[in-house]
Amino acid sequence: MRIGNLDSRLVLVTDRGAVDVATASGGEFGPDPQEVYVRWEAFVDWAAALDLDSAAAVPFDPERLGAPVPRPGQLFAIGMNYRDHAAEAGFDLPESPPVFTKFRGSITGPSGRVVLPGETVDWEVELVVVIGRTASRVSAEDAWSHVAGITAGQDLSERTTQLAGPAPQFSLGKSFPGFTPMGPWLVTLDELVVAGLDRDALDLGCSVNGESVQKGNTADLVFSVPELIARLSAVLPLEPGDVIFTGTPAGVGAARDPRWFLKPGDRLVSTIAGIGELDQQFVAASKEM
Amino acid sequence: MRIGNLDSRLVLVTDRGAVDVATASGGEFGPDPQEVYVRWEAFVDWAAALDLDSAAAVPFDPERLGAPVPRPGQLFAIGMNYRDHAAEAGFDLPESPPVFTKFRGSITGPSGRVVLPGETVDWEVELVVVIGRTASRVSAEDAWSHVAGITAGQDLSERTTQLAGPAPQFSLGKSFPGFTPMGPWLVTLDELVVAGLDRDALDLGCSVNGESVQKGNTADLVFSVPELIARLSAVLPLEPGDVIFTGTPAGVGAARDPRWFLKPGDRLVSTIAGIGELDQQFVAASKEM
Repeated sequence: MRIGNLDSRLVLVTDRGAVDVATASGGEFGPDPQEVYVRWEAFVDWAAALDLDSAAAVPFDPERLGAPVPRPGQLFAIGMNYRDHAAEAGFDLPESPPVFTKFRGSITGPSGRVVLPGETVDWEVELVVVIGRTASRVSAEDAWSHVAGITAGQDLSERTTQLAGPAPQFSLGKSFPGFTPMGPWLVTLDELVVAGLDRDALDLGCSVNGESVQKGNTADLVFSVPELIARLSAVLPLEPGDVIFTGTPAGVGAARDPRWFLKPGDRLVSTIAGIGELDQQFVAASKEM
Repeated sequence: MRIGNLDSRLVLVTDRGAVDVATASGGEFGPDPQEVYVRWEAFVDWAAALDLDSAAAVPFDPERLGAPVPRPGQLFAIGMNYRDHAAEAGFDLPESPPVFTKFRGSITGPSGRVVLPGETVDWEVELVVVIGRTASRVSAEDAWSHVAGITAGQDLSERTTQLAGPAPQFSLGKSFPGFTPMGPWLVTLDELVVAGLDRDALDLGCSVNGESVQKGNTADLVFSVPELIARLSAVLPLEPGDVIFTGTPAGVGAARDPRWFLKPGDRLVSTIAGIGELDQQFVAASKEM
């Protein structure tokens, strides 16, 4: 099942187009895309019983899609979670995952323009996990059963702000408007099985103006998705609709020689196997102000 | 005006007790304490027209109070924002405010028990600012006009988790359940004027088992409240119901010789002039599990 946010309404995405959930369910679920996670199990049961082939589906322009999780109560983001990225960033491998946030105002849909607030804006493609069932002190073995699904994310980062000061805190430099694209939709785990994919080993990557810059596989995560859920939920409960940005593989611009940052006119396309594509175009600040 | 969260219902706090807002307004405002900030200006107008002296007020046990802002969309927390605290923590004074978050699951009311997840839990009394009107690229001069009011907060911190790893990110170690007490209520800025207090120069402090450990004044903030709002809102819009923990003065346990951390049975009382008191009692983890 692919679940989307079309014009701020919850939809099921099919090959024929979008099925509006509030309409199809007679108002039992939707239209708010964020609220579905609070009643996730009931929603999955309803969706399983729905005759998708005969439901009214409407073709749509992908640019109308918003983030599948537009207002998470908690957004956890993990730093240095691929060996090759920690090395390129010049950090030792952490013994526990470094956790920051991307503030909610930075969340946006899978495609569209992003204003560049400075000259050191960098890319970080990431697998994003969405919680569907409260997770409190769960084991890694049990962790996937608390997940509603996965989506693609970009952890766009303004490196100057991110790394400023005597004890750099990453969150603010990663929270300019548009810096947290997610989508194109949420993919449930059963959908990966149907596609013959392994939820613990998904290819991901991104390209700038068609040139591949990051290429990795989630099997190389230092702390796997189940391990992250176990460690985070040991500190505080993860709630339905919470989001985890799981970290980025090597290939960011700040680690290149010479350094390579996004410029006005650049196009960034990010892909995760089994999920789909994000597509951002960057524009200068002056044109937006 | 003092605005509280009594049993998860929005109330006005008077000397005679609590006035239930949903009841007094015929359902126009309340009962959800978080929602009031979205319609803040209309609410203030309504409250100004209310005859508080004749409204039904009910005395209440302060232990029933929850956080006046139970589910902020964004919670910004500022590190090293008093000169004496930056010095005791061994950091240079930052040129820009270090910003982290306290995840929502750590928010709790002004009094009650907090489970100690480890042996290095520390206190940090802080002035907390709540946004009442969207602030996007506002000047410091205009910043206070975007504030609904202020409250007291404790930025409880598990130092081992907070400072772990090659690039410590503070957020997770400050987000155990109960680590973000707020209250006892929100105080609007006019109330400070009536009390003869200066919103930019408020005494704050806390004591452990009756012994004073922190004592400061918000006039000594490195980045003042208006300056923080200007700097944060230059990055992304601050929305109604967003919260800023403005930083803590000197006197934390980790900076003492010998180091001093909270133990089971300890009582932490935090006070800010014109607002009121927080009161936490600490218990061992084993007793809760």
